[in-house]
Amino acid sequence: MALSVEKTSSGREYKVEMPGLMACRAEFGPSKPFAGARISGSLHMTIQTAVLIETLTALGAEVRWCSCNIFSTQDHAAAAIARDSAAVFAWKGETLEEYWWCTERCLDWGEGGGPDLIVDDGGDATLLIHEGVKAEEEYEKTGKVPDPESTDNAEFKIVLTIIRDGIKADPKKYRKMKDRLVGVSEETTTGVKRLYQMQETGTLLFPAINVNDSVTKSKFDNLYGCRHSLPDGLMRATDVMIAGKVAVVCGYGDVGKGCAAALKQAGARVIVTEIDPICALQALMEGLQVLTLEDVVSEADIFVTTTGNKDIIMVDHMRKMKNNAIVCNIGHFDNEIDMHGLETYPGVKRITIKPQTDRWVFPETKTGIIVLAEGRLMNLGCATGHPSFVMSCSFTNQVIAQLELWKEKSSGKYEKKVYVLPKHLDEKVAALHLGKLGAKLTKLTKSQADYISVPIEGPYKPAHYRY
Amino acid sequence: MALSVEKTSSGREYKVEMPGLMACRAEFGPSKPFAGARISGSLHMTIQTAVLIETLTALGAEVRWCSCNIFSTQDHAAAAIARDSAAVFAWKGETLEEYWWCTERCLDWGEGGGPDLIVDDGGDATLLIHEGVKAEEEYEKTGKVPDPESTDNAEFKIVLTIIRDGIKADPKKYRKMKDRLVGVSEETTTGVKRLYQMQETGTLLFPAINVNDSVTKSKFDNLYGCRHSLPDGLMRATDVMIAGKVAVVCGYGDVGKGCAAALKQAGARVIVTEIDPICALQALMEGLQVLTLEDVVSEADIFVTTTGNKDIIMVDHMRKMKNNAIVCNIGHFDNEIDMHGLETYPGVKRITIKPQTDRWVFPETKTGIIVLAEGRLMNLGCATGHPSFVMSCSFTNQVIAQLELWKEKSSGKYEKKVYVLPKHLDEKVAALHLGKLGAKLTKLTKSQADYISVPIEGPYKPAHYRY
Amino acid sequence: MALSVEKTSSGREYKVEMPGLMACRAEFGPSKPFAGARISGSLHMTIQTAVLIETLTALGAEVRWCSCNIFSTQDHAAAAIARDSAAVFAWKGETLEEYWWCTERCLDWGEGGGPDLIVDDGGDATLLIHEGVKAEEEYEKTGKVPDPESTDNAEFKIVLTIIRDGIKADPKKYRKMKDRLVGVSEETTTGVKRLYQMQETGTLLFPAINVNDSVTKSKFDNLYGCRHSLPDGLMRATDVMIAGKVAVVCGYGDVGKGCAAALKQAGARVIVTEIDPICALQALMEGLQVLTLEDVVSEADIFVTTTGNKDIIMVDHMRKMKNNAIVCNIGHFDNEIDMHGLETYPGVKRITIKPQTDRWVFPETKTGIIVLAEGRLMNLGCATGHPSFVMSCSFTNQVIAQLELWKEKSSGKYEKKVYVLPKHLDEKVAALHLGKLGAKLTKLTKSQADYISVPIEGPYKPAHYRY
Amino acid sequence: MALSVEKTSSGREYKVEMPGLMACRAEFGPSKPFAGARISGSLHMTIQTAVLIETLTALGAEVRWCSCNIFSTQDHAAAAIARDSAAVFAWKGETLEEYWWCTERCLDWGEGGGPDLIVDDGGDATLLIHEGVKAEEEYEKTGKVPDPESTDNAEFKIVLTIIRDGIKADPKKYRKMKDRLVGVSEETTTGVKRLYQMQETGTLLFPAINVNDSVTKSKFDNLYGCRHSLPDGLMRATDVMIAGKVAVVCGYGDVGKGCAAALKQAGARVIVTEIDPICALQALMEGLQVLTLEDVVSEADIFVTTTGNKDIIMVDHMRKMKNNAIVCNIGHFDNEIDMHGLETYPGVKRITIKPQTDRWVFPETKTGIIVLAEGRLMNLGCATGHPSFVMSCSFTNQVIAQLELWKEKSSGKYEKKVYVLPKHLDEKVAALHLGKLGAKLTKLTKSQADYISVPIEGPYKPAHYRY
Repeated sequence: MALSVEKTSSGREYKVEMPGLMACRAEFGPSKPFAGARISGSLHMTIQTAVLIETLTALGAEVRWCSCNIFSTQDHAAAAIARDSAAVFAWKGETLEEYWWCTERCLDWGEGGGPDLIVDDGGDATLLIHEGVKAEEEYEKTGKVPDPESTDNAEFKIVLTIIRDGIKADPKKYRKMKDRLVGVSEETTTGVKRLYQMQETGTLLFPAINVNDSVTKSKFDNLYGCRHSLPDGLMRATDVMIAGKVAVVCGYGDVGKGCAAALKQAGARVIVTEIDPICALQALMEGLQVLTLEDVVSEADIFVTTTGNKDIIMVDHMRKMKNNAIVCNIGHFDNEIDMHGLETYPGVKRITIKPQTDRWVFPETKTGIIVLAEGRLMNLGCATGHPSFVMSCSFTNQVIAQLELWKEKSSGKYEKKVYVLPKHLDEKVAALHLGKLGAKLTKLTKSQADYISVPIEGPYKPAHYRY
Repeated sequence: MALSVEKTSSGREYKVEMPGLMACRAEFGPSKPFAGARISGSLHMTIQTAVLIETLTALGAEVRWCSCNIFSTQDHAAAAIARDSAAVFAWKGETLEEYWWCTERCLDWGEGGGPDLIVDDGGDATLLIHEGVKAEEEYEKTGKVPDPESTDNAEFKIVLTIIRDGIKADPKKYRKMKDRLVGVSEETTTGVKRLYQMQETGTLLFPAINVNDSVTKSKFDNLYGCRHSLPDGLMRATDVMIAGKVAVVCGYGDVGKGCAAALKQAGARVIVTEIDPICALQALMEGLQVLTLEDVVSEADIFVTTTGNKDIIMVDHMRKMKNNAIVCNIGHFDNEIDMHGLETYPGVKRITIKPQTDRWVFPETKTGIIVLAEGRLMNLGCATGHPSFVMSCSFTNQVIAQLELWKEKSSGKYEKKVYVLPKHLDEKVAALHLGKLGAKLTKLTKSQADYISVPIEGPYKPAHYRY
Repeated sequence: MALSVEKTSSGREYKVEMPGLMACRAEFGPSKPFAGARISGSLHMTIQTAVLIETLTALGAEVRWCSCNIFSTQDHAAAAIARDSAAVFAWKGETLEEYWWCTERCLDWGEGGGPDLIVDDGGDATLLIHEGVKAEEEYEKTGKVPDPESTDNAEFKIVLTIIRDGIKADPKKYRKMKDRLVGVSEETTTGVKRLYQMQETGTLLFPAINVNDSVTKSKFDNLYGCRHSLPDGLMRATDVMIAGKVAVVCGYGDVGKGCAAALKQAGARVIVTEIDPICALQALMEGLQVLTLEDVVSEADIFVTTTGNKDIIMVDHMRKMKNNAIVCNIGHFDNEIDMHGLETYPGVKRITIKPQTDRWVFPETKTGIIVLAEGRLMNLGCATGHPSFVMSCSFTNQVIAQLELWKEKSSGKYEKKVYVLPKHLDEKVAALHLGKLGAKLTKLTKSQADYISVPIEGPYKPAHYRY
Repeated sequence: MALSVEKTSSGREYKVEMPGLMACRAEFGPSKPFAGARISGSLHMTIQTAVLIETLTALGAEVRWCSCNIFSTQDHAAAAIARDSAAVFAWKGETLEEYWWCTERCLDWGEGGGPDLIVDDGGDATLLIHEGVKAEEEYEKTGKVPDPESTDNAEFKIVLTIIRDGIKADPKKYRKMKDRLVGVSEETTTGVKRLYQMQETGTLLFPAINVNDSVTKSKFDNLYGCRHSLPDGLMRATDVMIAGKVAVVCGYGDVGKGCAAALKQAGARVIVTEIDPICALQALMEGLQVLTLEDVVSEADIFVTTTGNKDIIMVDHMRKMKNNAIVCNIGHFDNEIDMHGLETYPGVKRITIKPQTDRWVFPETKTGIIVLAEGRLMNLGCATGHPSFVMSCSFTNQVIAQLELWKEKSSGKYEKKVYVLPKHLDEKVAALHLGKLGAKLTKLTKSQADYISVPIEGPYKPAHYRY
């Protein structure tokens, strides 16, 4: 349980550190800019998300919510929201069938169709609509409904089943949703990648704001959030002493940078695997070794995947690991670690030490590895995710993006493309978080501002600036 | 729950990382050197302690155990030990009366009197016997039994009550214990300080080995243990983001050094308070600011006491803190934070957010502070204490000290004084932990060993070496 | 003196670590792609630059060179190049008049006019041509030559004088240069900013490649280079113990980040000043305090300017500093520290402790401050600049940019705009530096590459990725 | 050159940061406690030592000085002292013959014999007297003078030659010195080891105070001093980029800890070699790898010896190193690196890149290694040694030790044994350095002091405390 959430007569009194969201309520609450807007959210149903939801409702929105991960819901947070503020379809430990049922429920506003706006994390809500529309169009043309047996992917089978059943009930369901939708704001690298792919192939059905690439998201949530929550998850799940251990971090993007920094600072010797020579050179400059997984698989104690790619740690790697090696993933999807290969390995034995912490013993060697959160996001499965402060940065970006989409719903400003927030809004998100930490900014003089050709009030950097 | 403890036919199969204790069992188990020895232990009843207890029994001892802190017992560990290995008097959340009842039970072996050996942490078992003997002698001389009302100290009242009741039942009880006792090994700075005071005043009743000042204890458990378990406790209790915060560490001994390092590495700005100019200068050399508590009480976010002294953070300090400032203690005793002053502050309101995490709201300001573990050891109250690996170092020292006391029980080698373990045993403890971490030691040549005048096999350093 | 440079029959044998440049020679040397090209460079004439120059000549170019800073020339490097490879106009300790004379000489290739390509650092060579062209056009229109007295800026007075004298000798001199010029590659934030301003106002006279914003430049040279060379300069100039000191870093861009990291790691307590809330929040996340200069001017021991802006530390600040406070600049231009205000302060006394290290004593207080390199780049003035390895990254970008400009000289691919290098070339620069550090990259499988929609061989990241 | 030393009418005005020595002058200067005392010092003749010498003279002593290393003299410091304050026998780049001639001169006060007190660093002055006395006694008994040919050790040959020549001139010279001598204070691990060996064998001729093991020496000079001066020496000598490199630190005592910390913080990957399992475990807890030199000799870029032992890096190791690997020593004596083996390696070629930086090329492989300061203390040979602030701690211990010896010269308090300074003096040294860094100490209350059984004013720690 995070610090508690209490509802008082004057509104919910939060003990969570989310200064950006609190500032949004103060600034926008009175004018109810979301009046009339239906927002569906697919995002880890945690205590921080509860503050986001109540910020949206405080600004006038109606809200329905589901989680974007089967393990990440904090049930007390879901319950509080369900009681007071919004329709919630989420609980800790959903099956995949339940997960997609929740996503579908979250998007279904009854007779009137779907939401006006989507808050997405990983893109599953967006994907369901896109797949739904595609299937409906195929059905209209050919009379064929989607065939779940046409795919090997267990999860996609479920998606097709839901869509097939939907078509039977209402063959225009997803197209009606699409027609109503003003846009989506998406906050994860993985979801954003999907959006850009759809933009490139011309299949994106509505405008999207890429919140992930706000500096105050990608460089904060991904980096500082993981720097906090990776060791938190490791310690809660295993109580392992990190000092003295050899840790392998697969991927040295922002998430990998945060993980590697945390492990190094806790006294581990960190080895990085990378495909990108630039990121690899960055790792080297921090004193980290860059090798391939094969080089180190049998000598490391802790393995973390952060790549956003698939098939990173395969069962064949796991078989070669030391006894009680810890294997976990902090990337968005659960396909970085080959759980399917592990589960179907002949003779493998799974011993659940406690929820989200399993020891898998291989029959030949009798050695076992510890897998966290079944290969899903370990910081949400084994701990409480990122701390409120950093989520406040991310979610303030979400609120601002939703406001922007809603304000411009009829202006034609946003086409069926992917946009990032303008820099002055990104800087605003940061500024809202400085006071809490006691910082004092320096003010440019007019003459200094002219000299570097920026407005006194910002934005201060060109778009390509990397921070 | 830590990684689980399973009992198999071939002995308990531990998933905990305690290579030193495992090595002791391998080396000494077969010869049962503790055959005939009764060992009473007063030490946090955690999963790691379970491994210590079973190491002692594997070496032939009979064991009775209590915890040395009312919150630190892990109930599943206590239950496992009680079922399989030893008499246990400990549970999480004892009252003070229950705590001292447990301590007394742990020392009472029935008709035959007390234990042969004591494993102590903080010195409460040792204190009870010393106070008992003193009271019995007074009673024999003057007929006066201890008067609990003679002290203001709530806890000492309870001690006197127990002794008083003991004298009524058996006026020689504690003296019989003393007569049987071969010695105690003590592992905490606080307990060791008491022992040296008794040595100086000539009141120490039996030999004592100061395990705390083995390098592999004081420089490992205190330093690296706290570096791990302080942030662990903070995160589990509050989910606070440490990065960006101002943290005050009171005391810069080994415990303070570990805490300050952890907080700094997690991105906090750390301020140290110190009385000792040498430790203060060390803090400065690490880039930490050294100020008094008064200087920073109203601007810091996190306060940690590590001094081993009393009256460090008083209620008057707490009143001046920022809203939701976090206050906790990682020193042995609970008198570093003025809990009495806080509890009796007029109009103060306590809101339990979850067990071991309380928000105390002051009536004038309506601001509240978050106090962890009621001012007791926060790493044990809010997390699972130090990790197994570092406890393995400490406990291997305990086992070796107990072996030494028992082996020399009749030789007169140990007088009623405080001893530290010889350096070669300290080095042995370290050596037992290297393999697990993949280290390879360099060997001296004969000529090199002669050049620096040490044996090839060690010990390598003079007694005064500081590491 | 850096590790020596020896010329052997088979070419210059370098002891400097510049794997990227060596690889360029191996790859491109045989085909002499620069055959027929005249390259003028304005860039610190150090030993590393010598390797750059000889790489350009090895690829077939003719080269003329000047330094871009009056103090940064390493005379032995200049001498070696002058003897063996190129015309050099640079020495350590130029006057401003000499500096601009050198720049003009470097651009003047005799009868045939100017260079084909410019390698620029800070943009002074580019500026001279632009100002020259502007003046010539004005002269053609109005008969007016530039009036050095029209400006207060001492340096710009000199520029105008040179141009005025040039017009008298040849009123088409700079326009002929412009006509011949294929383009410039510029490597500093400051120079790039000027280029974008000219692009915006439509006054840019030829294509420019912004090498500064290659990741392998801005995130390496600026960050890791300064992390190395700031403490190097401080130690060589003053032998000050950094541990325990309070250091103020003005600006937390890449240069500031490198400086702050170095100072923190050396044991200083670091305070950052910033105008940009995003950078300020980044500083906080690293445990640094963010305040204004006014807040800390009288308590800090070391001040470093890194802003790229002007008027950062004024004489009024300096008067309030502690005795022997150290003040230095590592930003490109020397207008961050108010040297003019200091030099003209009534009664101020300058004591040169050694070259580039002056103590300035204020008459009222008799306290003095230590100013390094007269407010110019302290890492070049007081030490040897960035280490070769990091300069190899920067200069490999320069070589690749020059190759690209020259190859496309007639294709029309580059307009009078500012371009960055394509990402695959940026990645190539990184890749050329991995082998030296023993790194092994992971290879994507086809299926993984498809999953994240990148080619197996890269580029791996979208243009907006921030690293 | 360090910050300059100017002599004014009111005494020398130092720009060096040595608050402890300044405080000694303020406290003791007026009473001239050293009136009548002759002090001979054998200690690196640097600018900081100049401040030490002038502190001794300010307190009333007459002083003669030599350096304790052939490369460590800063000639301008020696010149200033020779001009103003004391007899100095030291210059940068002495031959070994010159070195021992200087040592002998420094001890020879003319007719009246030798010094009253010795300030020693490494123990060479002490050794010369002990060897001299031994030879004189042998000569008196047997008429035999020392035979330089009796030893293979080139340096000891010189010592014997000097003593032999001395005996011819005055066969009681060293015994007269011994008789006059009140005692020596010694500040290096190496010199202290010699003293304890003489104490054990009963051959120590006069009292000795072990200044090295003051906490404010061993934990400051050795640790923080080397953390500063190792990278300083590396950068000045080679300009190598430390980030990304593999560095091997031989030995993980205080010096090794400082070196490893500096290298790690600068971005190197650090590997430690150790003989002592406790130190090895400490290295592991900091995330460093512990291997043998043989394991890593061919993959590392930088090698540093810090052991205080001999024969650490042999020519056979050096032959296997990578091209341009850097090899250096920061331990007191020059026998850690096998310079003799290197110099006599058949066909080896030495190229002096600049003074104190040599490239040695092996004939078989044509690869070369860079050896700094000919294997002697690289921080003194290639840079300016430790910074003043940390030397102030060490030298304040020296002054206090000399005062103590002189005060007790007739009291019999000190026998022919080795002593450490009492803890309250150690704490005093620290306290004298806090103000400069802006620290504020906390004061114990009476009740707190009683609770932990220390005086309010200290000392605060037991003798065995390790800090």
